[in-house]
Amino acid sequence: MKKNLSRREKVLDLLYQNQDKYLSGEELSNKLGVSRTSIWKYINYLREAGYQIESSSKVGYRLITSADNLLPEEIKRNLNTEIIGQEIIYYKEIESTNDTAKRLAQSGVDEGTVVIAEEQKRGKGRLGREFCSPLGGIWLSCILRPDIKPTLATRATYIASLAIVKTINKLSAVDAKIKWPNDILIGDKKVSGILTEMGAELDRVDYLVVGMGINLNFSLDNFDESLHNKVTTIYHETGKKVSRVEFVQALLEEIERIYYKLNNFEEILEEWKAYSYTLGRIVKIDSKREEIIGEAIDIAEDGALLVKVDDKVRKFYSGEVSLCHQGFNSGN
Amino acid sequence: MKKNLSRREKVLDLLYQNQDKYLSGEELSNKLGVSRTSIWKYINYLREAGYQIESSSKVGYRLITSADNLLPEEIKRNLNTEIIGQEIIYYKEIESTNDTAKRLAQSGVDEGTVVIAEEQKRGKGRLGREFCSPLGGIWLSCILRPDIKPTLATRATYIASLAIVKTINKLSAVDAKIKWPNDILIGDKKVSGILTEMGAELDRVDYLVVGMGINLNFSLDNFDESLHNKVTTIYHETGKKVSRVEFVQALLEEIERIYYKLNNFEEILEEWKAYSYTLGRIVKIDSKREEIIGEAIDIAEDGALLVKVDDKVRKFYSGEVSLCHQGFNSGN
Repeated sequence: MKKNLSRREKVLDLLYQNQDKYLSGEELSNKLGVSRTSIWKYINYLREAGYQIESSSKVGYRLITSADNLLPEEIKRNLNTEIIGQEIIYYKEIESTNDTAKRLAQSGVDEGTVVIAEEQKRGKGRLGREFCSPLGGIWLSCILRPDIKPTLATRATYIASLAIVKTINKLSAVDAKIKWPNDILIGDKKVSGILTEMGAELDRVDYLVVGMGINLNFSLDNFDESLHNKVTTIYHETGKKVSRVEFVQALLEEIERIYYKLNNFEEILEEWKAYSYTLGRIVKIDSKREEIIGEAIDIAEDGALLVKVDDKVRKFYSGEVSLCHQGFNSGN
Repeated sequence: MKKNLSRREKVLDLLYQNQDKYLSGEELSNKLGVSRTSIWKYINYLREAGYQIESSSKVGYRLITSADNLLPEEIKRNLNTEIIGQEIIYYKEIESTNDTAKRLAQSGVDEGTVVIAEEQKRGKGRLGREFCSPLGGIWLSCILRPDIKPTLATRATYIASLAIVKTINKLSAVDAKIKWPNDILIGDKKVSGILTEMGAELDRVDYLVVGMGINLNFSLDNFDESLHNKVTTIYHETGKKVSRVEFVQALLEEIERIYYKLNNFEEILEEWKAYSYTLGRIVKIDSKREEIIGEAIDIAEDGALLVKVDDKVRKFYSGEVSLCHQGFNSGN
């Protein structure tokens, strides 16, 4: 699907389609109905963004190599979605994609808008924790506007975790799992985290911002050594780099597919359970009042974790749950 | 308490304290440690805001009448609070105090910050409805940052409704009541409404914006005639105008007093019930699936309305509840 492409996006698209030959400035100018000066500006923009584009005043332009950066024109070229990622806002560097997405959501941008950055300077985890987000990873936030009550907002985290784990396993042949509620693990090490935030009236969600961070094409050196037994990256696990553009495309498509099932949570949950790391394990709940140990046995219809404690099943909602004999609450 | 006053606020304060005599520019300038040109600017600002200030080049300045507008310096002069209203952001005209307060909350302003306007051009009610907000009323939004889960955010509406009803009854000797969850009535007509919005992670509130609109010193003519049997104003009911500055001061002080009890909801509720219009009445619940009629009998610990339907007690959360034989869902 190639809809809603801007002129800049169309220039890149034409260069991709014609990598075997040269396209003259005049051809490009005619096809897009803009001046040759504009074409020249678009080409320069692409070069600055890391594309290698050969040019000759006689024959024109030819794309040599792309940059595997996350430019919207690159992601949207082969993106097969109707809503998610139809608008992509790109930053080389950003404080936090979630904070920017929340501002945009409040100013009224469309559902499906994605904020993406090569690097986050102040990436955020749950409860205000830091989230390390160097070059080579995927750091993006997606704006959703479902017509649901705030109590159901937790479904967004299920959608994102399922989409991430499926995308990781499909593109890098590892066996990632979901640690309830919002982490993705390879083995027992965290490779991805999710932070869902919302703006709402008391009985109606205005927007959800689902922030996702995936440790893709960078080495463990980016983390403090004290975290090396708790976090990992896909590159560290497989020794291979994955196309980041393809990863984002696959991820956004998965998100959309699952998001369409929002009102059919049972179905999402069924798929989700196949990737669960938590269910069947002994967990520890640190609430303010007491410390509880029990077996995670299921997910309730409202997204709560059901834990069997002394033959009684209890419900837990937030991320105060940790796996026994592990220290997953800190780091990345 | 006179703390945190800006220089502009101090100029007004000095003028108030010395209404029986003239204050020379030099005196003001010395007391505040600013130039006489600055003093002259502050005086002009106050005049533009509606204050009558006599001046003579020989003897100086003297305050003749205040303006009963809602300038921060005016409200803060005799405001007896520690948090609520310590920062007041004032607009003559605004689109919506809630929208502005949400932006400010997101940018990190302190708890207790109040956004107030003489007039709202696009005042908002629940579920995106319009809220008529002409000159003479009180239109303000208060930013709170309680350390609670989103499911408890409804408490803010209880705090605001109780604070409003107490302030109305104290300052204008009417017998206003609270129509659950977020309207204040005189007789059976709406005189005030509340809109609570929030920004949150799934398990932690970041901010609450509690928007309050009170139909104070203006006539019914401001409403379409079709609404005259549903809405009223305090001026229409009593024929008297109330000092708006005093009203806001009393309201903010009540909010703070009740907010301090946030974690002791039982106590708030006990006070709230004395002003309830809804409890004991027959109500109709319009949910998407069914229409239910029953008797509103109590409020649950989590803020839900308990309705007795066919000898069974059921819980309802949102404003889908209306009183039978009335059409309270529209208007103002």
